[in-house]
Amino acid sequence: MTVELHTLPNGLRVVTEHMPGLKSASVGLWVAAGGRHERADQNGIAHFLEHMAFKGTTRRNALEIAEAIEDVGGYINAYTSREMTAYYARVLEADVPLAIDVIADIVLNPVFDPAEIEIERHVILQEIGQAHDTPDDIIFDWLQEAAFPDQPLGRTILGPAECVERFTRDDLAAFVAERYAPGQMILSAAGAVDHEAIVAEAERIFGHLTGHETGAPEPAQFRTSERREAKALEQVHFALGFEAPGYRNDAVYTGQIFATAFGGGMSSRLFQEIREKRGLCYTIFAQAGAYADSGLLTIYAGTSREEIADLGNLTVDELKRAAEDMSAAEVARARTQMKAGLLMGLESPASRAERIARLVAIWGRVPDLDETIQKIDAVTTGDVRSFAERLASSGAAMALYGPLSDAPAPGALARRLAA
Amino acid sequence: MTVELHTLPNGLRVVTEHMPGLKSASVGLWVAAGGRHERADQNGIAHFLEHMAFKGTTRRNALEIAEAIEDVGGYINAYTSREMTAYYARVLEADVPLAIDVIADIVLNPVFDPAEIEIERHVILQEIGQAHDTPDDIIFDWLQEAAFPDQPLGRTILGPAECVERFTRDDLAAFVAERYAPGQMILSAAGAVDHEAIVAEAERIFGHLTGHETGAPEPAQFRTSERREAKALEQVHFALGFEAPGYRNDAVYTGQIFATAFGGGMSSRLFQEIREKRGLCYTIFAQAGAYADSGLLTIYAGTSREEIADLGNLTVDELKRAAEDMSAAEVARARTQMKAGLLMGLESPASRAERIARLVAIWGRVPDLDETIQKIDAVTTGDVRSFAERLASSGAAMALYGPLSDAPAPGALARRLAA
Repeated sequence: MTVELHTLPNGLRVVTEHMPGLKSASVGLWVAAGGRHERADQNGIAHFLEHMAFKGTTRRNALEIAEAIEDVGGYINAYTSREMTAYYARVLEADVPLAIDVIADIVLNPVFDPAEIEIERHVILQEIGQAHDTPDDIIFDWLQEAAFPDQPLGRTILGPAECVERFTRDDLAAFVAERYAPGQMILSAAGAVDHEAIVAEAERIFGHLTGHETGAPEPAQFRTSERREAKALEQVHFALGFEAPGYRNDAVYTGQIFATAFGGGMSSRLFQEIREKRGLCYTIFAQAGAYADSGLLTIYAGTSREEIADLGNLTVDELKRAAEDMSAAEVARARTQMKAGLLMGLESPASRAERIARLVAIWGRVPDLDETIQKIDAVTTGDVRSFAERLASSGAAMALYGPLSDAPAPGALARRLAA
Repeated sequence: MTVELHTLPNGLRVVTEHMPGLKSASVGLWVAAGGRHERADQNGIAHFLEHMAFKGTTRRNALEIAEAIEDVGGYINAYTSREMTAYYARVLEADVPLAIDVIADIVLNPVFDPAEIEIERHVILQEIGQAHDTPDDIIFDWLQEAAFPDQPLGRTILGPAECVERFTRDDLAAFVAERYAPGQMILSAAGAVDHEAIVAEAERIFGHLTGHETGAPEPAQFRTSERREAKALEQVHFALGFEAPGYRNDAVYTGQIFATAFGGGMSSRLFQEIREKRGLCYTIFAQAGAYADSGLLTIYAGTSREEIADLGNLTVDELKRAAEDMSAAEVARARTQMKAGLLMGLESPASRAERIARLVAIWGRVPDLDETIQKIDAVTTGDVRSFAERLASSGAAMALYGPLSDAPAPGALARRLAA
């Protein structure tokens, strides 16, 4: 692996990873501008801005943006998360300079044409409708809100319709001025790429940018609230959220190993006890998500109306049992799964570009794979049991969606957890 | 690329592709046993069998199956389609023999324990519930049923609850006897793999198998029926299906190029005309699916109740317009997108293992990439316009799901298409 990092005088970072044998590359711009950088009245604007990037620049209209990449057989897209907005493309080797040119154009030169803003507002309202029609998507928004209520980290990425209906050209420009400073941007590329050539492109295209970040986001405050939405669905969609370490805290590895052993694969406790032994669900899993200052360990399952009480109780009981008897063999397996997953994930240019961008955002550098593997190996069975014990004692946020007539009463799972 | 194919005396094919530089591999067994090989009273049994493979063998119980692969950090899963069932694993290089051993064990030695059948029946009923809670999943089942009514190809993979509630141990064993003959199986591996070693493993493990396929599936008969399901959702989910070429027909490339130019990316007509210019939806796309003897070209969009009539009419109008004025530039772009997509898809071991298995199933060999590229390049603008004209003149199957008060009247879109 040959990772190289360069910082432009204005603070923009360029990180590349050459992968021998590949004929294509993944390249993108990661900007530290996400949902949690929005004020309540701005909620949804980072995502709205991401949409507007594709609606026309001073050099290309919407069709020309799409054609520029698709004419060479490439793929371009973007996403907004709670801490980042990413604009990325997948192209063949020869088209990497073109991809950087197009990505820079849509991020630096959007025109925000008022007629296009109206059309895109409508597209985003449709996207919100689509999310609400997907129970195992929207439930994670509701869980996030229950875990971090009345805080930027608890709000949705798409924003509420009331906000989306209101945003103006000036609102978009103001958010760009606040958050799109060069020190907040990382240009990342992996695959058939040449570091010096990409740095030269970055200097030429991004070298003139100025501006400074305005303020860190509000610190996260985890809460154990519950959100219930009754609807005539086939299943009750059930999600629990627990406070977990932020990504600069080495305990983040303990959280990931716990999540893997508890609900990360077919050999995990949740899968074995709740699906394999009892048939109570088709989908059940646990995963550990991390932000700068906090994280959220999430458990999700979908089950029928009659079985939600059993499923909820068993999930809580399994968590408490894990604190007592999670075995060395289970922890060793979870460590191996994480390490192998890390190695196998490195075989795709898209996941490498994403990984090195994320590591530069967190650490300002790309730690050696060995460093990460050592941290995973350092997690003991005792660490994992203590982690589970802390989860049980500090309580859970909860979201429930579907036919709720037989669901546990409000507070019932919290009491069982604390018992 | 070094693809090697070997046929065992009993007819089982072994196909491998060594990818230099990789440290992991993807390996799987593809069996010509899918939804369309079921009789009406058997509907769902191929998928039920796939589930039961993981519930215990003569050598391993369910937990031991999961542990065998996850102890070494690997991943194992399976899927059932209308023409195939696949069991596959992703592992590091050293664990390829283990992965083949586990896959062979779950396919050849399942015990079908009656208690496990009851549990798994319940899991599959939950899976059916989950599919029904996902409108942009279930609508494709309904479209398939509208396009191929009262035929094996039109039935769902999961099967109706009535069938799933009824299957017995004998039904499972009978389906294995009918469809799991060695001549119907392909062992495929890609990544850090050695052909000779895998052939030797295959001979040892699968060499004793006997049995012959029993009958080809019923030929597909495309129909233009409509299915409507009213429900209080945020969006109307809308799907059109057109008859398209089967995968042994070279016109399949024309269909794929048409689908790409018409609704395959951001520069496509559907995306530009319906989302970018008018904001009528968030998701809209066209794609061409193929089976042995027929195919289904699908258009999907989700929109609000008030806008479904506009969206439906515009989709039909765009199809008719494509027959008249699809340009050489659009066709050239679609050809380039397909070729680049093919090359970039080859960078993952999972997609390579899947691709070579599929090609051996279709052609009995793995055609050179150049051969496929020549067929893509041979498609002309005239071919694509004629293809669109045939779609418009032969009519569409349709599925609608959601708030339907403002939807086009039954037959209205068919009449507009034919006008």
